[in-house]
Amino acid sequence: MNLVLLDPAEVSASGECRVADQRSRHLRDVLRVTIGSAIRVGVIDGPLGTATVTSVADTAVDLRCRFETETPSPPGVDLLLAMPRPKVMRRLWAQLAALGVGRILITNAERVERNYFDAHILTAAEYRPLLIEGLQQVRDTRLPIVTVHRQLKVLVEDHLGTLCPDTVRLVADPGDEKPVQDAVAGAAERRVLLAVGPEGGWNDYERGLFAAHGFAPVGLGARTLRTDTACIALLALVHEALRTATTDLVPKGY
Amino acid sequence: MNLVLLDPAEVSASGECRVADQRSRHLRDVLRVTIGSAIRVGVIDGPLGTATVTSVADTAVDLRCRFETETPSPPGVDLLLAMPRPKVMRRLWAQLAALGVGRILITNAERVERNYFDAHILTAAEYRPLLIEGLQQVRDTRLPIVTVHRQLKVLVEDHLGTLCPDTVRLVADPGDEKPVQDAVAGAAERRVLLAVGPEGGWNDYERGLFAAHGFAPVGLGARTLRTDTACIALLALVHEALRTATTDLVPKGY
Repeated sequence: MNLVLLDPAEVSASGECRVADQRSRHLRDVLRVTIGSAIRVGVIDGPLGTATVTSVADTAVDLRCRFETETPSPPGVDLLLAMPRPKVMRRLWAQLAALGVGRILITNAERVERNYFDAHILTAAEYRPLLIEGLQQVRDTRLPIVTVHRQLKVLVEDHLGTLCPDTVRLVADPGDEKPVQDAVAGAAERRVLLAVGPEGGWNDYERGLFAAHGFAPVGLGARTLRTDTACIALLALVHEALRTATTDLVPKGY
Repeated sequence: MNLVLLDPAEVSASGECRVADQRSRHLRDVLRVTIGSAIRVGVIDGPLGTATVTSVADTAVDLRCRFETETPSPPGVDLLLAMPRPKVMRRLWAQLAALGVGRILITNAERVERNYFDAHILTAAEYRPLLIEGLQQVRDTRLPIVTVHRQLKVLVEDHLGTLCPDTVRLVADPGDEKPVQDAVAGAAERRVLLAVGPEGGWNDYERGLFAAHGFAPVGLGARTLRTDTACIALLALVHEALRTATTDLVPKGY
C-alpha cells in the first residue's frame, strides 16, 4: 500500500480523519506507524496529500491530513470489456485500476456465458475494494466508474455516445494484427475507448456493430492471450501510445 | 487449452502418442473428443501439428499425430526478473509463456527478500506445468528456459554474455519514463533482454551495474505497478516494438 485512500465522507473540513478497518491494521502492523509518522493519503476522486498520525489504538488510527490543491486527471482510457470468467475478472479489477481506466463498461457478447453476469464479482461491494487496492498501489485517486451492460447492441447504439463522448474508438480481437500505436497516433489530447473481446473473439455481427460505430480494429498479433493478460497488454500499449504522443517522445527519425 | 503439448519422448517415430493425465481428462471431459476427432497438438520445443483421436478410454486418449516441418522460432525477448513474492511469481509463469519469452532469468536484488528463493514455485516441478499451460493457451511450443541466479553481480558480469548473447539490453525501474519503443527502435532483427526490478526498485549499485553493462533504462512512467502487471505491460511493449519494427508497420508520417 503506497497510499491510504480515504472516502470524502471520512475527512472533516479541517482534515481530521479516523480509519478503523484494514487500513488502520495495515498502518499499525505493516507500516508500523507511531504518533507523528507521516504517510501519503488521497481522497477518492479528490486530491493527493500527506497525513500526520495523531493517535494509534488497537482498533483505529487518527490522521491529520493536508491535501494538494489539484485532483489528478482521470486516466485517458476507457475500457469496454466482454465479461470474462468471474475468476479472471476478480484478478483484473485491481490491475485495471492500477494501469488507469476512467470507465469500465462490462458487457455481454455471444461468446460470453450468460451466468457470468450473476457472479458476485460484478457487485460494487466486491469490486470496489479491489479497485481501491489498485489505486493505492499506484498512488492514484481516480476510481474507475463501473457499469454493467447486458446488451452490447443497446450499449453501442444508444449509450456509448453519452458515456464515452469524443473518444478514439478501438476494438481488439484475438489474432488481430493492427498495432495500437498506429491507431492512436494523431489522437494526442483525445481519450481512447478500448473494446476487448471474449477469449473466443467477437462474432461477425459484433465486429460489424463496432465497425459501424467507428471502432478501428487493433490487436497483438497471432497469440490468443487470456483475457486478463490481453487487457493488461492492450491497456499498456494504449497508455504508452498516448504518453509518447502527448509528450512528443516518439523519435522523429521514422 | 487451444493446443495439446506433448513431450518429445511421448511421441513414437510414426507419430503415435498416448496421453493419460490432465490432458486426456481435458480432451474427454471438456473438448468431448471421440474417435476420429481432430485436435491441435505440438511437441515441446518442436513443431505444431494436428492429431486424430484413435481411442478414448477412462484413463487415456490415443492420438495419431502429423507435424509440420518447421518449429516455431523462439520469442525475441528474454526476461531478467528480480524475484517477486512467490504468490505473484506463481501467477506470472503462464502469462510469461503466453506472451513469449526465450529465457527467464530469476535473480536476486537488494530489495528481494532472501526467503523468496526457498519457494516451491522456483522448482521445475511447479513452474513447468504453468509454463506449458501458457504455451497451450497461445499455441506455441517454445518452452522458456528458466535459470535462477542468487547473485545479480555474478549473473550480469560473468554469465549474461553467454546466456543472452547479442541482445539489446533494457532495464526497467518503477517510475522510469523512457519509452520501450524508443529503446527498441532500430533494433529490428535483434533479440531483446529486458530486466525488471523488484517493486521497491533497483538500488543505486544495481542501476550502476546495469548501466556499466550496456542496459538502457526504460519505464512506464509515474505509476509503480505490481511486478506481475509491470512484467506483462513491459513485455507487451517490447513485443509490439519488435513486431512493428520488423514488419515495418510503424507509420511513416512521424
